[in-house]
Amino acid sequence: EIVAAVESVLAPQRAGRLAGRKVLVTAGPTHEPIDPVRYIANRSSGRQGFAIAAAAAEEGADVVLVSGPVSLADPPGVNVVRVETAREMMAAVESALPVDAAVMTAAVADWRTEADSGHKIKKDGSGRPPALVLVENPDILATLGHHPSARPKLLVGFAAETDDLIANARAKLDRKGCDWIVANDVNPETGNMGGAFNTVRIVSRAGIEEWPRLAKEDVARRLVGRIADHFAGA
Amino acid sequence: EIVAAVESVLAPQRAGRLAGRKVLVTAGPTHEPIDPVRYIANRSSGRQGFAIAAAAAEEGADVVLVSGPVSLADPPGVNVVRVETAREMMAAVESALPVDAAVMTAAVADWRTEADSGHKIKKDGSGRPPALVLVENPDILATLGHHPSARPKLLVGFAAETDDLIANARAKLDRKGCDWIVANDVNPETGNMGGAFNTVRIVSRAGIEEWPRLAKEDVARRLVGRIADHFAGA
Repeated sequence: EIVAAVESVLAPQRAGRLAGRKVLVTAGPTHEPIDPVRYIANRSSGRQGFAIAAAAAEEGADVVLVSGPVSLADPPGVNVVRVETAREMMAAVESALPVDAAVMTAAVADWRTEADSGHKIKKDGSGRPPALVLVENPDILATLGHHPSARPKLLVGFAAETDDLIANARAKLDRKGCDWIVANDVNPETGNMGGAFNTVRIVSRAGIEEWPRLAKEDVARRLVGRIADHFAGA
Repeated sequence: EIVAAVESVLAPQRAGRLAGRKVLVTAGPTHEPIDPVRYIANRSSGRQGFAIAAAAAEEGADVVLVSGPVSLADPPGVNVVRVETAREMMAAVESALPVDAAVMTAAVADWRTEADSGHKIKKDGSGRPPALVLVENPDILATLGHHPSARPKLLVGFAAETDDLIANARAKLDRKGCDWIVANDVNPETGNMGGAFNTVRIVSRAGIEEWPRLAKEDVARRLVGRIADHFAGA
Protein backbone atom coordinates (compact mmCIF):
# COMPACT_ATOMS: atom_id res chain seq x y z
CA GLU A 1 0.00 0.00 0.00
CA ILE A 2 2.78 2.40 0.88
CA VAL A 3 4.64 1.53 -2.32
CA ALA A 4 1.48 2.10 -4.40
CA ALA A 5 0.84 5.46 -2.74
CA VAL A 6 4.42 6.60 -3.35
CA GLU A 7 4.20 5.49 -6.97
CA SER A 8 0.95 7.41 -7.48
CA VAL A 9 2.59 10.57 -6.13
CA LEU A 10 5.70 10.18 -8.24
CA ALA A 11 4.09 9.00 -11.47
CA PRO A 12 2.43 11.53 -13.74
CA GLN A 13 -1.36 11.20 -13.49
CA ARG A 14 -1.68 10.57 -17.22
CA ALA A 15 0.88 9.60 -19.79
CA GLY A 16 1.65 12.00 -22.65
CA ARG A 17 3.70 15.09 -23.34
CA LEU A 18 1.03 17.41 -21.89
CA ALA A 19 0.41 15.39 -18.72
CA GLY A 20 -0.15 17.74 -15.79
CA ARG A 21 -0.95 20.68 -18.10
CA LYS A 22 -4.35 22.36 -18.19
CA VAL A 23 -5.48 23.36 -21.69
CA LEU A 24 -8.50 25.50 -22.55
CA VAL A 25 -9.99 25.29 -26.06
CA THR A 26 -12.91 27.34 -27.41
CA ALA A 27 -14.84 26.22 -30.49
CA GLY A 28 -17.87 26.80 -32.67
CA PRO A 29 -19.90 29.92 -33.39
CA THR A 30 -21.88 32.05 -31.00
CA HIS A 31 -25.56 32.80 -31.55
CA GLU A 32 -26.75 36.27 -30.56
CA PRO A 33 -30.54 36.40 -30.13
CA ILE A 34 -32.50 39.19 -31.85
CA ASP A 35 -35.85 37.96 -30.50
CA PRO A 36 -37.25 34.52 -29.54
CA VAL A 37 -37.19 33.32 -33.18
CA ARG A 38 -34.24 35.13 -34.77
CA TYR A 39 -30.51 35.36 -34.15
CA ILE A 40 -27.23 36.50 -35.69
CA ALA A 41 -24.70 33.69 -36.10
CA ASN A 42 -21.19 33.08 -37.28
CA ARG A 43 -20.44 30.18 -39.57
CA SER A 44 -18.32 27.63 -37.75
CA SER A 45 -18.69 23.88 -37.62
CA GLY A 46 -16.48 23.61 -34.52
CA ARG A 47 -14.54 20.75 -36.14
CA GLN A 48 -11.07 22.29 -35.81
CA GLY A 49 -11.54 23.17 -32.15
CA PHE A 50 -13.03 19.79 -31.24
CA ALA A 51 -10.08 18.07 -32.98
CA ILE A 52 -7.58 20.19 -31.00
CA ALA A 53 -9.34 19.40 -27.70
CA ALA A 54 -9.28 15.68 -28.56
CA ALA A 55 -5.59 15.78 -29.55
CA ALA A 56 -4.63 17.64 -26.34
CA ALA A 57 -6.51 15.07 -24.23
CA GLU A 58 -4.75 12.25 -26.10
CA GLU A 59 -1.46 13.94 -25.19
CA GLY A 60 -2.45 13.75 -21.52
CA ALA A 61 -3.65 17.31 -20.89
CA ASP A 62 -6.53 18.21 -18.60
CA VAL A 63 -8.78 19.82 -21.26
CA VAL A 64 -11.75 22.17 -20.93
CA LEU A 65 -13.59 22.75 -24.23
CA VAL A 66 -16.01 25.72 -24.26
CA SER A 67 -18.20 25.40 -27.34
CA GLY A 68 -20.97 27.40 -28.97
CA PRO A 69 -23.88 25.62 -30.74
CA VAL A 70 -22.50 22.83 -32.95
CA SER A 71 -23.68 19.35 -33.88
CA LEU A 72 -20.60 17.45 -32.68
CA ALA A 73 -20.32 14.88 -29.90
CA ASP A 74 -18.10 15.48 -26.85
CA PRO A 75 -14.53 14.27 -27.54
CA PRO A 76 -13.52 11.47 -25.15
CA GLY A 77 -11.78 12.57 -21.96
CA VAL A 78 -12.62 16.26 -22.47
CA ASN A 79 -14.67 18.42 -20.09
CA VAL A 80 -17.13 20.15 -22.47
CA VAL A 81 -19.05 23.32 -21.53
CA ARG A 82 -21.80 24.24 -24.04
CA VAL A 83 -22.79 27.90 -24.40
CA GLU A 84 -24.81 29.99 -26.86
CA THR A 85 -23.77 33.65 -26.72
CA ALA A 86 -20.43 35.47 -26.58
CA ARG A 87 -21.17 36.65 -23.07
CA GLU A 88 -21.84 33.09 -21.91
CA MET A 89 -18.59 31.98 -23.58
CA MET A 90 -16.65 34.77 -21.82
CA ALA A 91 -18.02 33.66 -18.44
CA ALA A 92 -17.23 29.97 -19.09
CA VAL A 93 -13.68 30.86 -20.20
CA GLU A 94 -13.09 32.95 -17.05
CA SER A 95 -14.34 30.05 -14.91
CA ALA A 96 -11.75 27.75 -16.53
CA LEU A 97 -8.75 29.96 -15.57
CA PRO A 98 -5.92 29.54 -14.71
CA VAL A 99 -4.69 27.37 -17.60
CA ASP A 100 -1.27 26.59 -19.06
CA ALA A 101 -2.37 26.97 -22.68
CA ALA A 102 -5.48 28.39 -24.33
CA VAL A 103 -6.35 27.72 -27.96
CA MET A 104 -9.14 30.05 -29.04
CA THR A 105 -10.72 28.68 -32.22
CA ALA A 106 -14.29 29.91 -31.60
CA ALA A 107 -15.83 32.27 -34.15
CA VAL A 108 -17.21 34.67 -31.56
CA ALA A 109 -19.78 37.19 -32.81
CA ASP A 110 -18.27 40.68 -32.70
CA TRP A 111 -21.67 42.22 -32.17
CA ARG A 112 -24.93 41.42 -30.44
CA THR A 113 -28.25 43.26 -30.54
CA GLU A 114 -28.56 45.89 -27.85
CA ALA A 115 -31.64 44.27 -26.32
CA ASP A 116 -33.01 40.82 -27.07
CA SER A 117 -36.63 41.82 -27.53
CA GLY A 118 -38.16 38.84 -25.72
CA HIS A 119 -41.11 39.15 -28.11
CA LYS A 120 -41.19 38.30 -31.80
CA ILE A 121 -40.58 41.43 -33.86
CA LYS A 122 -43.41 41.90 -36.41
CA LYS A 123 -43.35 43.54 -39.80
CA ASP A 124 -45.18 46.84 -39.34
CA GLY A 125 -46.56 46.98 -42.89
CA SER A 126 -44.42 49.98 -43.80
CA GLY A 127 -41.96 47.88 -45.76
CA ARG A 128 -39.26 49.41 -43.58
CA PRO A 129 -37.11 46.94 -41.68
CA PRO A 130 -36.74 47.15 -37.91
CA ALA A 131 -33.81 49.10 -36.52
CA LEU A 132 -31.36 46.56 -35.15
CA VAL A 133 -29.05 48.38 -32.78
CA LEU A 134 -25.83 46.42 -32.48
CA VAL A 135 -23.32 46.66 -29.65
CA GLU A 136 -19.85 45.15 -29.39
CA ASN A 137 -19.44 41.85 -27.57
CA PRO A 138 -16.64 41.29 -25.06
CA ASP A 139 -13.35 40.42 -26.80
CA ILE A 140 -12.56 37.06 -25.21
CA LEU A 141 -9.15 36.64 -26.83
CA ALA A 142 -7.95 40.14 -25.88
CA THR A 143 -9.30 39.69 -22.36
CA LEU A 144 -7.07 36.63 -21.92
CA GLY A 145 -4.12 38.28 -23.69
CA HIS A 146 -4.20 41.25 -21.33
CA HIS A 147 -5.42 39.40 -18.23
CA PRO A 148 -3.94 41.07 -15.12
CA SER A 149 -3.65 37.92 -13.00
CA ALA A 150 -4.30 34.77 -15.05
CA ARG A 151 -2.93 35.19 -18.57
CA PRO A 152 -2.40 31.70 -20.04
CA LYS A 153 1.31 30.84 -20.29
CA LEU A 154 0.72 30.18 -24.00
CA LEU A 155 -2.12 31.94 -25.78
CA VAL A 156 -3.03 30.83 -29.31
CA GLY A 157 -5.62 32.76 -31.32
CA PHE A 158 -7.24 31.83 -34.61
CA ALA A 159 -7.87 34.27 -37.44
CA ALA A 160 -10.36 33.25 -40.11
CA GLU A 161 -9.76 35.63 -42.96
CA THR A 162 -10.79 36.11 -46.56
CA ASP A 163 -8.30 38.88 -47.38
CA ASP A 164 -4.83 40.05 -46.30
CA LEU A 165 -4.36 36.91 -44.23
CA ILE A 166 -0.88 37.63 -42.90
CA ALA A 167 -1.31 41.38 -42.34
CA ASN A 168 -4.54 40.77 -40.45
CA ALA A 169 -2.99 37.93 -38.42
CA ARG A 170 0.04 40.03 -37.42
CA ALA A 171 -2.15 42.94 -36.40
CA LYS A 172 -4.30 40.55 -34.36
CA LEU A 173 -1.23 39.07 -32.62
CA ASP A 174 -0.31 42.49 -31.23
CA ARG A 175 -3.79 43.85 -30.60
CA LYS A 176 -4.98 40.78 -28.69
CA GLY A 177 -1.73 40.06 -26.88
CA CYS A 178 -1.41 36.49 -28.23
CA ASP A 179 1.71 34.37 -28.59
CA TRP A 180 0.68 32.65 -31.82
CA ILE A 181 -2.07 33.22 -34.36
CA VAL A 182 -3.24 30.32 -36.49
CA ALA A 183 -4.36 32.11 -39.66
CA ASN A 184 -6.74 30.14 -41.83
CA ASP A 185 -8.09 31.01 -45.21
CA VAL A 186 -11.89 30.83 -45.25
CA ASN A 187 -12.47 32.00 -48.80
CA PRO A 188 -15.49 29.98 -49.95
CA GLU A 189 -13.51 28.39 -52.80
CA THR A 190 -11.13 26.69 -50.33
CA GLY A 191 -13.92 24.58 -48.81
CA ASN A 192 -12.10 24.89 -45.45
CA MET A 193 -15.06 26.37 -43.61
CA GLY A 194 -17.25 23.51 -42.41
CA GLY A 195 -15.06 21.04 -44.32
CA ALA A 196 -12.67 18.30 -43.24
CA PHE A 197 -9.44 20.06 -44.25
CA ASN A 198 -7.68 23.27 -43.29
CA THR A 199 -4.95 25.42 -44.78
CA VAL A 200 -3.19 27.33 -42.01
CA ARG A 201 -0.16 29.48 -41.28
CA ILE A 202 1.29 29.85 -37.79
CA VAL A 203 2.11 33.51 -37.20
CA SER A 204 4.28 34.41 -34.19
CA ARG A 205 6.75 37.16 -33.34
CA ALA A 206 9.44 34.74 -34.58
CA GLY A 207 7.97 34.55 -38.08
CA ILE A 208 5.48 32.74 -40.25
CA GLU A 209 5.28 29.02 -40.76
CA GLU A 210 3.21 27.73 -43.68
CA TRP A 211 1.60 24.33 -43.23
CA PRO A 212 0.37 22.22 -46.12
CA ARG A 213 -3.33 21.53 -46.59
CA LEU A 214 -4.10 18.93 -43.90
CA ALA A 215 -7.07 17.12 -42.41
CA LYS A 216 -8.31 19.10 -39.39
CA GLU A 217 -7.30 16.17 -37.14
CA ASP A 218 -3.74 16.44 -38.50
CA VAL A 219 -3.66 20.23 -38.02
CA ALA A 220 -4.79 19.51 -34.44
CA ARG A 221 -2.10 16.89 -33.72
CA ARG A 222 0.62 19.05 -35.23
CA LEU A 223 -0.47 22.11 -33.23
CA VAL A 224 -0.67 20.11 -29.99
CA GLY A 225 2.84 18.76 -30.74
CA ARG A 226 4.05 22.35 -31.12
CA ILE A 227 2.44 23.29 -27.80
CA ALA A 228 4.19 20.34 -26.12
CA ASP A 229 7.52 21.44 -27.72
CA HIS A 230 6.95 24.94 -26.32
CA PHE A 231 6.48 23.69 -22.76
CA ALA A 232 9.49 21.36 -23.17
CA GLY A 233 11.54 24.44 -24.04
CA ALA A 234 12.27 23.19 -27.56
CA GLU B 1 -49.29 -7.92 -70.73
CA ILE B 2 -52.38 -6.08 -71.95
CA VAL B 3 -54.16 -6.87 -68.68
CA ALA B 4 -51.18 -5.60 -66.68
CA ALA B 5 -51.04 -2.36 -68.70
CA VAL B 6 -54.78 -1.75 -68.25
CA GLU B 7 -54.49 -2.41 -64.54
CA SER B 8 -51.60 0.02 -64.21
CA VAL B 9 -53.67 2.72 -65.90
CA LEU B 10 -56.78 2.05 -63.83
CA ALA B 11 -55.15 1.45 -60.46
CA PRO B 12 -53.99 4.41 -58.41
CA GLN B 13 -50.22 4.62 -58.54
CA ARG B 14 -49.93 4.48 -54.77
CA ALA B 15 -52.38 3.43 -52.11
CA GLY B 16 -53.56 5.99 -49.53
CA ARG B 17 -56.07 8.78 -49.17
CA LEU B 18 -53.78 11.31 -50.92
CA ALA B 19 -52.83 9.02 -53.82
CA GLY B 20 -52.62 11.07 -57.02
CA ARG B 21 -52.33 14.37 -55.09
CA LYS B 22 -49.23 16.55 -55.23
CA VAL B 23 -48.29 18.13 -51.90
CA LEU B 24 -45.64 20.80 -51.32
CA VAL B 25 -44.16 21.24 -47.84
CA THR B 26 -41.62 23.88 -46.79
CA ALA B 27 -39.56 23.45 -43.62
CA GLY B 28 -36.67 24.75 -41.58
CA PRO B 29 -35.17 28.22 -41.25
CA THR B 30 -33.52 30.34 -43.88
CA HIS B 31 -30.02 31.72 -43.47
CA GLU B 32 -29.37 35.19 -44.88
CA PRO B 33 -25.65 35.89 -45.36
CA ILE B 34 -24.16 39.12 -44.00
CA ASP B 35 -20.64 38.28 -45.22
CA PRO B 36 -18.71 35.01 -45.76
CA VAL B 37 -18.62 34.25 -42.03
CA ARG B 38 -21.84 35.76 -40.64
CA TYR B 39 -25.56 35.33 -41.24
CA ILE B 40 -28.98 36.10 -39.82
CA ALA B 41 -31.04 33.01 -39.04
CA ASN B 42 -34.43 32.01 -37.77
CA ARG B 43 -34.72 29.31 -35.15
CA SER B 44 -36.42 26.27 -36.64
CA SER B 45 -35.45 22.63 -36.30
CA GLY B 46 -37.56 21.63 -39.33
CA ARG B 47 -39.02 18.73 -37.36
CA GLN B 48 -42.69 19.65 -37.82
CA GLY B 49 -42.35 20.14 -41.57
CA PHE B 50 -40.34 16.95 -42.10
CA ALA B 51 -42.98 15.01 -40.12
CA ILE B 52 -45.77 16.47 -42.30
CA ALA B 53 -43.90 15.58 -45.50
CA ALA B 54 -43.36 12.03 -44.21
CA ALA B 55 -47.03 11.66 -43.20
CA ALA B 56 -48.27 12.95 -46.59
CA ALA B 57 -45.98 10.47 -48.40
CA GLU B 58 -47.29 7.65 -46.19
CA GLU B 59 -50.80 8.69 -47.25
CA GLY B 60 -49.78 8.21 -50.89
CA ALA B 61 -49.14 11.82 -51.95
CA ASP B 62 -46.42 12.89 -54.37
CA VAL B 63 -44.47 15.12 -51.94
CA VAL B 64 -41.91 17.87 -52.59
CA LEU B 65 -40.21 19.12 -49.42
CA VAL B 66 -38.28 22.39 -49.77
CA SER B 67 -36.07 22.80 -46.70
CA GLY B 68 -33.67 25.38 -45.35
CA PRO B 69 -30.53 24.33 -43.40
CA VAL B 70 -31.49 21.63 -40.87
CA SER B 71 -29.77 18.52 -39.54
CA LEU B 72 -32.51 16.04 -40.48
CA ALA B 73 -32.36 13.14 -42.93
CA ASP B 74 -34.62 13.01 -46.01
CA PRO B 75 -37.95 11.34 -45.13
CA PRO B 76 -38.50 8.14 -47.15
CA GLY B 77 -40.36 8.59 -50.43
CA VAL B 78 -40.12 12.39 -50.38
CA ASN B 79 -38.42 14.55 -53.02
CA VAL B 80 -36.28 16.91 -50.89
CA VAL B 81 -34.88 20.21 -52.23
CA ARG B 82 -32.32 21.85 -49.89
CA VAL B 83 -31.92 25.64 -49.97
CA GLU B 84 -30.27 28.28 -47.80
CA THR B 85 -31.88 31.69 -48.35
CA ALA B 86 -35.47 32.95 -48.67
CA ARG B 87 -34.90 33.80 -52.32
CA GLU B 88 -33.66 30.27 -53.04
CA MET B 89 -36.71 28.88 -51.21
CA MET B 90 -39.06 31.10 -53.26
CA ALA B 91 -37.50 29.81 -56.49
CA ALA B 92 -37.71 26.15 -55.42
CA VAL B 93 -41.36 26.59 -54.39
CA GLU B 94 -42.25 28.17 -57.74
CA SER B 95 -40.55 25.27 -59.53
CA ALA B 96 -42.75 22.81 -57.62
CA LEU B 97 -46.05 24.39 -58.79
CA PRO B 98 -48.77 23.43 -59.57
CA VAL B 99 -49.69 21.45 -56.43
CA ASP B 100 -52.93 20.34 -54.84
CA ALA B 101 -51.94 21.30 -51.31
CA ALA B 102 -49.11 23.38 -49.88
CA VAL B 103 -48.17 23.29 -46.20
CA MET B 104 -45.79 26.13 -45.45
CA THR B 105 -44.03 25.42 -42.15
CA ALA B 106 -40.70 27.11 -42.96
CA ALA B 107 -39.58 29.96 -40.73
CA VAL B 108 -38.56 32.23 -43.60
CA ALA B 109 -36.44 35.25 -42.69
CA ASP B 110 -38.49 38.42 -43.20
CA TRP B 111 -35.35 40.42 -43.96
CA ARG B 112 -32.00 39.94 -45.59
CA THR B 113 -29.01 42.27 -45.74
CA GLU B 114 -29.08 44.57 -48.72
CA ALA B 115 -25.77 43.30 -50.08
CA ASP B 116 -23.87 40.21 -48.94
CA SER B 117 -20.46 41.81 -48.63
CA GLY B 118 -18.44 38.92 -50.09
CA HIS B 119 -15.62 39.98 -47.78
CA LYS B 120 -15.44 39.61 -44.02
CA ILE B 121 -16.57 42.83 -42.34
CA LYS B 122 -13.89 44.02 -39.88
CA LYS B 123 -14.23 46.03 -36.71
CA ASP B 124 -12.90 49.50 -37.58
CA GLY B 125 -11.61 50.28 -34.08
CA SER B 126 -14.18 53.01 -33.56
CA GLY B 127 -16.33 50.81 -31.32
CA ARG B 128 -19.21 51.62 -33.66
CA PRO B 129 -20.95 48.59 -35.19
CA PRO B 130 -21.30 48.30 -38.96
CA ALA B 131 -24.50 49.60 -40.53
CA LEU B 132 -26.50 46.56 -41.58
CA VAL B 133 -29.04 47.69 -44.13
CA LEU B 134 -31.92 45.21 -44.18
CA VAL B 135 -34.41 44.74 -47.00
CA GLU B 136 -37.59 42.66 -47.04
CA ASN B 137 -37.46 39.17 -48.43
CA PRO B 138 -40.12 37.87 -50.83
CA ASP B 139 -43.24 36.72 -48.96
CA ILE B 140 -43.48 33.10 -50.12
CA LEU B 141 -46.80 32.34 -48.41
CA ALA B 142 -48.53 35.47 -49.75
CA THR B 143 -47.10 34.82 -53.22
CA LEU B 144 -48.82 31.42 -53.26
CA GLY B 145 -52.01 32.78 -51.67
CA HIS B 146 -52.39 35.43 -54.36
CA HIS B 147 -50.85 33.45 -57.23
CA PRO B 148 -52.57 34.47 -60.50
CA SER B 149 -52.34 31.08 -62.22
CA ALA B 150 -51.22 28.35 -59.83
CA ARG B 151 -52.65 28.96 -56.36
CA PRO B 152 -52.65 25.63 -54.48
CA LYS B 153 -56.18 24.24 -54.08
CA LEU B 154 -55.53 24.12 -50.34
CA LEU B 155 -52.99 26.49 -48.81
CA VAL B 156 -51.94 25.97 -45.19
CA GLY B 157 -49.71 28.51 -43.46
CA PHE B 158 -47.97 28.25 -40.09
CA ALA B 159 -47.77 31.08 -37.59
CA ALA B 160 -45.17 30.78 -34.85
CA GLU B 161 -46.14 33.36 -32.30
CA THR B 162 -45.22 34.43 -28.80
CA ASP B 163 -48.11 36.86 -28.29
CA ASP B 164 -51.73 37.34 -29.44
CA LEU B 165 -51.70 33.93 -31.10
CA ILE B 166 -55.24 33.93 -32.48
CA ALA B 167 -55.41 37.60 -33.50
CA ASN B 168 -52.09 37.28 -35.34
CA ALA B 169 -53.15 34.02 -36.99
CA ARG B 170 -56.50 35.49 -38.19
CA ALA B 171 -54.76 38.56 -39.58
CA LYS B 172 -52.25 36.33 -41.34
CA LEU B 173 -55.03 34.18 -42.85
CA ASP B 174 -56.47 37.22 -44.63
CA ARG B 175 -53.26 39.02 -45.47
CA LYS B 176 -51.58 35.97 -46.99
CA GLY B 177 -54.66 34.55 -48.70
CA CYS B 178 -54.43 31.14 -46.92
CA ASP B 179 -57.17 28.61 -46.27
CA TRP B 180 -55.90 27.48 -42.88
CA ILE B 181 -53.31 28.77 -40.45
CA VAL B 182 -51.71 26.37 -38.00
CA ALA B 183 -50.90 28.66 -35.10
CA ASN B 184 -48.26 27.39 -32.73
CA ASP B 185 -47.08 28.83 -29.49
CA VAL B 186 -43.31 29.27 -29.46
CA ASN B 187 -42.93 30.93 -26.10
CA PRO B 188 -39.64 29.55 -24.75
CA GLU B 189 -41.36 28.02 -21.70
CA THR B 190 -43.44 25.68 -23.93
CA GLY B 191 -40.33 23.89 -25.22
CA ASN B 192 -42.16 23.51 -28.56
CA MET B 193 -39.45 25.21 -30.62
CA GLY B 194 -36.82 22.60 -31.45
CA GLY B 195 -38.60 20.05 -29.26
CA ALA B 196 -40.55 16.86 -29.98
CA PHE B 197 -44.02 18.21 -29.17
CA ASN B 198 -46.26 20.95 -30.46
CA THR B 199 -49.30 22.81 -29.21
CA VAL B 200 -51.33 24.09 -32.17
CA ARG B 201 -54.64 25.63 -33.10
CA ILE B 202 -56.10 25.36 -36.60
CA VAL B 203 -57.50 28.75 -37.61
CA SER B 204 -59.76 28.92 -40.67
CA ARG B 205 -62.62 31.14 -41.81
CA ALA B 206 -64.92 28.49 -40.25
CA GLY B 207 -63.45 28.95 -36.80
CA ILE B 208 -60.73 27.83 -34.46
CA GLU B 209 -59.94 24.27 -33.50
CA GLU B 210 -57.71 23.66 -30.49
CA TRP B 211 -55.58 20.53 -30.53
CA PRO B 212 -54.03 19.00 -27.44
CA ARG B 213 -50.28 18.96 -26.94
CA LEU B 214 -49.11 16.20 -29.30
CA ALA B 215 -45.88 14.72 -30.60
CA LYS B 216 -44.94 16.50 -33.85
CA GLU B 217 -45.48 13.21 -35.74
CA ASP B 218 -49.04 13.08 -34.37
CA VAL B 219 -49.71 16.73 -35.30
CA ALA B 220 -48.45 15.77 -38.78
CA ARG B 221 -50.68 12.70 -39.16
CA ARG B 222 -53.73 14.55 -37.87
CA LEU B 223 -53.10 17.49 -40.23
CA VAL B 224 -52.59 15.17 -43.21
CA GLY B 225 -55.85 13.41 -42.26
CA ARG B 226 -57.61 16.79 -42.29
CA ILE B 227 -56.15 17.54 -45.72
CA ALA B 228 -57.40 14.18 -47.02
CA ASP B 229 -60.87 14.93 -45.53
CA HIS B 230 -60.86 18.28 -47.32
CA PHE B 231 -60.17 16.70 -50.73
CA ALA B 232 -62.76 14.00 -49.99
CA GLY B 233 -65.29 16.80 -49.50
CA ALA B 234 -65.83 15.89 -45.84
